[in-house]
Amino acid sequence: MTYTHETAPTQYVEANGIRFAYRRFGKPGGMPLVFNQHYTGTMDYWDPAVTDGLAQSREVILFNNAGVSNSSGETPSSFQEMGANALAFIRALGLKQVDVLGISIGGFVAQEIALQGGDFVRKLILVGTGHRGNDMTASRSAEIFAGSYDPPEHLWLAVHFKPTETSRKAGLAFIERKLSRRDRDPEVSEQTVAAQGEAIGKWITPGENALDYLKSIKQPTLIVQGSDDAIIPTIHSLTLQQNLPNAQLIIYPDSGHGSIYQYPELFVAHARLFLGA
Amino acid sequence: MTYTHETAPTQYVEANGIRFAYRRFGKPGGMPLVFNQHYTGTMDYWDPAVTDGLAQSREVILFNNAGVSNSSGETPSSFQEMGANALAFIRALGLKQVDVLGISIGGFVAQEIALQGGDFVRKLILVGTGHRGNDMTASRSAEIFAGSYDPPEHLWLAVHFKPTETSRKAGLAFIERKLSRRDRDPEVSEQTVAAQGEAIGKWITPGENALDYLKSIKQPTLIVQGSDDAIIPTIHSLTLQQNLPNAQLIIYPDSGHGSIYQYPELFVAHARLFLGA
Repeated sequence: MTYTHETAPTQYVEANGIRFAYRRFGKPGGMPLVFNQHYTGTMDYWDPAVTDGLAQSREVILFNNAGVSNSSGETPSSFQEMGANALAFIRALGLKQVDVLGISIGGFVAQEIALQGGDFVRKLILVGTGHRGNDMTASRSAEIFAGSYDPPEHLWLAVHFKPTETSRKAGLAFIERKLSRRDRDPEVSEQTVAAQGEAIGKWITPGENALDYLKSIKQPTLIVQGSDDAIIPTIHSLTLQQNLPNAQLIIYPDSGHGSIYQYPELFVAHARLFLGA
Repeated sequence: MTYTHETAPTQYVEANGIRFAYRRFGKPGGMPLVFNQHYTGTMDYWDPAVTDGLAQSREVILFNNAGVSNSSGETPSSFQEMGANALAFIRALGLKQVDVLGISIGGFVAQEIALQGGDFVRKLILVGTGHRGNDMTASRSAEIFAGSYDPPEHLWLAVHFKPTETSRKAGLAFIERKLSRRDRDPEVSEQTVAAQGEAIGKWITPGENALDYLKSIKQPTLIVQGSDDAIIPTIHSLTLQQNLPNAQLIIYPDSGHGSIYQYPELFVAHARLFLGA
């Protein structure tokens, strides 16, 4: 039986004293791709058009990091610790090498996984994300997350899409795809929200040599971003590209933080070209 | 008989009182792609890996603009006039609609073709280029073109590639591909060099609303650039992306002005995704 985003059962594996919830599906045999989720998201927040699209040519692994939703333990308050937990989880699956994708703060975790994992991580995809010491002055994040939405799910329209007609329409289609799975994870706890917030505060603290760590991320990296990201300003993706030793940057038109949910087929094609196969 | 970059005969067509030299090859039936060359270049300066790669799925049209090499007339001293001449040439071929690619100052010409051609131009690919009122302070162009090279052909290593080992190696392979065709165009005249130089001077003159014209380029556009373009600084590609109504940007790692010659297969794949088919 071939599982999909909708049908893959939630499984559990223990590592670092944490019981990690995960789902695994797609074409076996190649290099698996491990997905790292954004602020307050669970495995159910991914776009099936992206995960199933990539699962055509490789195994896709979704998981909830420590303390998130149905994974046990506490969510730590630094991305370094989240990266260490993620790496422990991936190693517990018995994999020899993996590719890693992260969106938003999941991109911060992905960078930590690449730094700590070395050769264990083959390639990296960073979506709608930034670097340590990110200047968030231009971010409209606080205002967007403080807003009220009817239905509440439309928060994610404001986070991931632009107010243009085309982007909003793509956003509504994304939300429909996202909600298609029946067997869903519990939402994250207050502890997770607080710890992720604290970790963000530490990450964006300016530092004189804040960008130096990027030189140590040797993995070939694909950076993907929207033309106008309201959460993590688009310019930081260029800064990432300019400071990583081996990074390709793709910016999509008329799009925001969740650009890959606006152009899922194009992103899957770009990611496949980058990852190979 | 199927022609390639190496074997396509040079043909001539008359328009605007000019006899244009051109070559046409590739898969007929789809949307042809018209190539606009960089400073002092002729049809022989394109990379066969790029032209033949794209010719697998469409017709590729190379030409020398007015006054350039074996095309008659004088090279005009503005990109607006070069765009008008290019458009006259394309229309003289009896085509209903085309896609247009330009590299470097060929990207300036391509923008003028798109502005003047309207719906006649379907999609645009801009490589290693910039916009009107480009700030050239960071360009190392003057120094690079003033240098002496042994062999002289290695000027193009300095123009199109970075001094890293990987980029230089790709550059040497490009030059070998570029020189493979036997039946070659004459080099450009002093008149062409002077007129192109004058046109560049006008184009980069700063102006308060220098970017406004980009709003009128409605064609879906793919912008491609190297991570560190010594001729037209990389940042201008982001400015283009941010100001064009519908533009995708791709920046390749470890590369310069001629990024598409460093990654010809990847560029062909990206261009095919963008153009369709």
